[in-house]
Amino acid sequence: MLNSMPAFARLEAELCKLPGIGSKTAARLAFHLLQTSEQNVRALADALVEMKTKVSLCHCCFHIAENDLCRICANPERDQHSLCVVQEPQDLLAVERSGSFRGRYHVLHGALSPLDGIGPEDLKISELFQRLDQEPIEEVMLATNFTVEGEATALYLSKLLKEKGLRVTQLAHGIPSGSDLEYVDAGTVQQAVSGRREL
Amino acid sequence: MLNSMPAFARLEAELCKLPGIGSKTAARLAFHLLQTSEQNVRALADALVEMKTKVSLCHCCFHIAENDLCRICANPERDQHSLCVVQEPQDLLAVERSGSFRGRYHVLHGALSPLDGIGPEDLKISELFQRLDQEPIEEVMLATNFTVEGEATALYLSKLLKEKGLRVTQLAHGIPSGSDLEYVDAGTVQQAVSGRREL
Repeated sequence: MLNSMPAFARLEAELCKLPGIGSKTAARLAFHLLQTSEQNVRALADALVEMKTKVSLCHCCFHIAENDLCRICANPERDQHSLCVVQEPQDLLAVERSGSFRGRYHVLHGALSPLDGIGPEDLKISELFQRLDQEPIEEVMLATNFTVEGEATALYLSKLLKEKGLRVTQLAHGIPSGSDLEYVDAGTVQQAVSGRREL
Repeated sequence: MLNSMPAFARLEAELCKLPGIGSKTAARLAFHLLQTSEQNVRALADALVEMKTKVSLCHCCFHIAENDLCRICANPERDQHSLCVVQEPQDLLAVERSGSFRGRYHVLHGALSPLDGIGPEDLKISELFQRLDQEPIEEVMLATNFTVEGEATALYLSKLLKEKGLRVTQLAHGIPSGSDLEYVDAGTVQQAVSGRREL
């Protein structure tokens, strides 16, 4: 049926490539866009091209930025002595939202995963060590995800960082805020017990 | 944080306007698009504009089409004597997928809904009656949705169509294929009982 409408079918196919959007959702979106004003559809198309043209990676920390430096690296008020290492720009935004870190960041753009063929050279690790030589960094806080790959990356980095005589810390693992102990999984409780602190 | 990245924030805002896409999904899609090749993003942008430029409504049945007539109206092998009336192009596609109807269609682009201020003049109803005068239609099959609005529209149309001496039919309402009677809602069972047929 849709073979006779190549432009419509093409939009559906392009929408289908987006994560979490299957053929049914793509059709629904395409029909919605068909009924939207041409102005709105052009606004979306322009926003796509503009984002791709303007947004690149910060030359210093590899967070997304629309200039050479991202807003955090360009801000002289951020603490130059502590650096938070995250896997992805989204993770940086999560730490920023918590409002609990005043230092700078370094985005690795991935985690070590030998099974997927991702080694240290595929991540922004050499760039991290370059920064350590150039900037007055004293503490590196590892905020990789609490997954097998994230933990492996943290372990790998902590070894190298300690050799350089830096203070290396990692986000605490334990009971998440607002949770009822009864429903917390055993692995998390185990982490919370082994990481218990003096009061 | 994202205030410093107007192009990224703008794409997020445009994606947020799509149905079923909230701010979290919009951010996820925007990050995905950021990591996709520029070629792919441009392909999506072009597909959007192309669809909006090329796809319009069939002059005869108001289904979506990329020419004056949709493929069904342009096909001389379709039965010219029976017409299926649906609310939206998506409904037409659903009937087509069933492979059970060989006639032509008429898309109303909505259903009567006095509470939302949608009356007969807001739907393609006058165009439907124009077609009845010009085409050799003998049977009109009403395939509006089985909702209050769809049923009201079917009732309204059936009155007018019967006055013109046409055979007016409606999709059967009853137990859906593959269902266990135990789990079918009471309203559907009631419809199935009152619409029972002789074997």
